[in-house]
Formats: sequence, structure tokens, C-alpha cells
Amino acid sequence: MEIWKGGVISNQIKEQAESELSGLARVPRLAIIRVGERPDDVSYERGAVKKLQSFGLEVESHVFEEGISDGAFREEFCRINADPQTDGILVLRPLPKQLDEHWVEETIDPRKDVDGISPVNIAKVFSGDRTGFAPCTAEAVLWMLKGNGISLEGKRAVVVGRSMVVGRPLSMLLLHENATVTICHSRTKDLPAVCRGAEILVACVGKARMIGRDYVGEGALVVDVGINVDQEGRLCGDVDFASLEGRAAAATPVPGGVGGVTTAVLALHLIRAARQA
Amino acid sequence: MEIWKGGVISNQIKEQAESELSGLARVPRLAIIRVGERPDDVSYERGAVKKLQSFGLEVESHVFEEGISDGAFREEFCRINADPQTDGILVLRPLPKQLDEHWVEETIDPRKDVDGISPVNIAKVFSGDRTGFAPCTAEAVLWMLKGNGISLEGKRAVVVGRSMVVGRPLSMLLLHENATVTICHSRTKDLPAVCRGAEILVACVGKARMIGRDYVGEGALVVDVGINVDQEGRLCGDVDFASLEGRAAAATPVPGGVGGVTTAVLALHLIRAARQA
Repeated sequence: MEIWKGGVISNQIKEQAESELSGLARVPRLAIIRVGERPDDVSYERGAVKKLQSFGLEVESHVFEEGISDGAFREEFCRINADPQTDGILVLRPLPKQLDEHWVEETIDPRKDVDGISPVNIAKVFSGDRTGFAPCTAEAVLWMLKGNGISLEGKRAVVVGRSMVVGRPLSMLLLHENATVTICHSRTKDLPAVCRGAEILVACVGKARMIGRDYVGEGALVVDVGINVDQEGRLCGDVDFASLEGRAAAATPVPGGVGGVTTAVLALHLIRAARQA
Repeated sequence: MEIWKGGVISNQIKEQAESELSGLARVPRLAIIRVGERPDDVSYERGAVKKLQSFGLEVESHVFEEGISDGAFREEFCRINADPQTDGILVLRPLPKQLDEHWVEETIDPRKDVDGISPVNIAKVFSGDRTGFAPCTAEAVLWMLKGNGISLEGKRAVVVGRSMVVGRPLSMLLLHENATVTICHSRTKDLPAVCRGAEILVACVGKARMIGRDYVGEGALVVDVGINVDQEGRLCGDVDFASLEGRAAAATPVPGGVGGVTTAVLALHLIRAARQA
């Protein structure tokens, strides 16, 4: 079984980023908005900052107290959203309950919305309009496949998970590449059988090692989007990676797989936002 | 094989429409915008006017010459869009080439966009937010299934066709009902085999009688969205209806199937738009 590492794809994206970066008068700047100190957020932010800086980009973190009022948060958000020095905005979510996430989605400038949360970008992903921004994780899966030389044309792709961050937008991206796409979820009957029919299997469910050998057809390509912590406290994906040996043709590890590609896509989106500004 | 007629479902929708209509101070009004005299448009408009009037609703047709300039059309469109007496707007498409359809999608008031063409409504359909308007035809398929007592929970649904008017939004509507959804299209390999795996098969490809018996599994429910004219000049669907006898458990005819349900859904959307105004 081939192991598809994220680093290889990140480097491909970096090359493209460097060529798109040249000619820009100013270094693009990302604003990361974080409320509170959730370990997931802090860890994702750390990875994103590191990756963006390695791409020669600027990041400014805006950290607010977990208890910030909706009014105060809106004021701060509007200020960042309107700042002409800010090319892209990444909001770490979910936000605490007192804040109106829906308001954020509606308010964020679609041209700065580098992680594709605004209705304008959602509609563009749905309709196949490539001038918008897809959620970085969904696009990272596409990079992982195409960067490893896989054509999606006519392929049977099965996506397990239907979130707005990965499953649904990814299904649309795969469809635009002319794959035949099946979207599965917790209510799908006989999930292993449906998954075994996939030439390309993408797991984005958020359950540690749920997708084992009996979910994988002979020669399948398996992309693992999950980032979970198992009972022993170790980082792991949605896929039981070790069990796929001799069955899958290729699979992505966790850690070391899609995660790093996601932040590389974020960097690429930031550069595009700056170019379009 | 059971024959699912559109009239039965239209009557169910009419009952719901009547209860939602009561208590409104004014009769809801739909503006239909048609450019030129394409027979398809004229025929659809005639059906829509008849259906809406039978629901006790008002329709105003705005007909423009096929050669109208983009500037003149925009001016007229903005006037209709801003008219407080207009509760809903239906634009017959495609528009002639000199007119910017994309501008119409961006400009139409999402609250009056009863056929779901604006990015706001597209994003709502994608995210499962039921405050928006789905394209009427896509929603009509759901009514056809649910109105015949079919639960979609956990069902294997296959949608053949990926247009923005039916295939893609319908896939999302089916997904929100917890079906396992496969989206097929012209590049799908071995389409008959994929279709035979469906418990619910929806054809929206626009090819006369393309879906024959070998595409249909034993006991499948088949919904035909196609409206085509065959070589003898007769109206027919995407499904070779006669060939399904003894194979499908139920199917919708063309004419007499989904078409009439679509205009009933349009009526329901208009009433909801008026209620929300």
C-alpha cells in the first residue's frame, strides 16, 4: 500500500503559491480570529501560523476572551473585516454559544473569506464557479488526489460524512471533476458495503479508526480527513490505517496527511484573495 | 406497477396552500418575467398561470422583446424587484445571450426568489436551512415521494443529472431527509448498474426515454423529471415508462407527473414569500 504523505502535496502547493505570490506589491496578511483557548483551536492556529510563515505570508492573531459579548465581538469583527491591510480572515469555530455564528457567515467579506463560510462562496462551490473559496479541508482532499496523479473522471467516489466543512462541499468538488459521488452518513444502511464499492473513499466523520479493512475495496484510494484522539490519548484519523495493508492501493496517514495540506491550501487562498483585492 | 400521478400531490399541496393563505390581508402576486416567445417558456408560463389562479393567487406576466438590451432589461427588472405589490418573481430561463443571467441571480431579492436562483437561497438549500426557497422542480420530486407515503430515511437514492435546477439541489434535499445519495451524470461509468442499485431513482437528464428497464432495480421507485419531445413530436420523459411494468414498484408518468407538482410548489413558495414579507 502506497502511503500518501501531506508534505509532498504541501510542497507542490508551495511552488504554485510562490509563482502566484510574485508580483504582489505587499505581503498578504491573514487575520485569525480565535475566541477562548480551546486546545483544538490553539493547535490548529499554531500549525496555520507556521505554515503561512513558511510560505512567506503574514499572520495576525486576534484572540478574544471566551466570555466576550456578542455586541463587542461584532464590533471587533467589523473592524477586522473592513481593514484594507487584511487580505483574508479565518474564524476558528465553533464560536462560544453567546456569539452568532450565522451573523459572521453573513457579514464576512466574501473576498476575504478564505475558508469558504459565506453564502456567496458556498453558492459558488455548489455551482462550480471557481472564482470563490471552497473550505480549505475539502479542497485539500482534491489536492491530495490530484497531486498523486489520480484522475477523478468517471471514478466512483464515496464520501463518508456530510458536514458543511468537508463532506458536502467536497462532494460538489468531486462532482465538478466528473466523479460519480455517493454521500454517506450516520443513517446510511450497510455502510461497509457502500464504502467497499468506492474507487476513492474519503472519511470525514470524526470517529477514531471507524473505517476499517471491511469498508475498503481491493485497490481503493483512501483519504482520511479525521483528526481524533484515541483512548490512549494519541492522535489518529477516522481510518484504521494499519488494517488497510494489502487491501487499499493508497491511503493517507494521520498525522502527516491531509491536515498539513489544509493549511497549505489556506495559504494559497490568502494569496489569491490578495491578488483579487 | 403503481402509477404516481401529479394531480394527487398537487391537491395535497393545494390543501396546505389554502391553510397558509388564510389570514393574509392581500392576495399574493407572482411576477413572471419572460423574454421572447420560446415555445417551452410560453407553455410553462401557461401552466403556471393556470395553476396559480386555481390556487387563488395573482400572476402578472412581464413579456419583453427577444432583442431587449441588457441595460433596458436591468432597469425593468429592478423596477419589478422593488415593487412592494410583487411577492414573488419567476424568471423564465435561459435568457437570450445579450442578457446577464448572473446579474439577475445576484440582484433578485432572495425573499421574492420563489424558484431559488439567488446565491442566498442556493446556500440555504446546501446547508439545509429551510427558511430559503429550493428550486421548485427539485422540491416537487420530494413532494412526489413523501406525498406517496415514502420515507427517505436510510434509502439508497440515485439522481441522474447534476443541473443547478434539479440534480444538485435535489441531491441536497434528499440528503437532508437522510437518504444515501449518489449523483450520476454523463461521465458516470456503467450507469445502468449504478441506477439498478437505487431504491429511489430520479431521472433529470433531458434525454427522451433514456432510462429503460435495464436501469431499474426490482421494486424501485422511479421519479421522472424530464420533459422531452420525441421523434414523433410527442411529449415524453427521460424514462421509458412502459418498459418498467413488472420491474419498478412505482413510477411517475410524463405528462401528468412531476410537471404539475412543480407549479403547485411554485404557488406554495409564493404564499410563503407573501407571508414573510
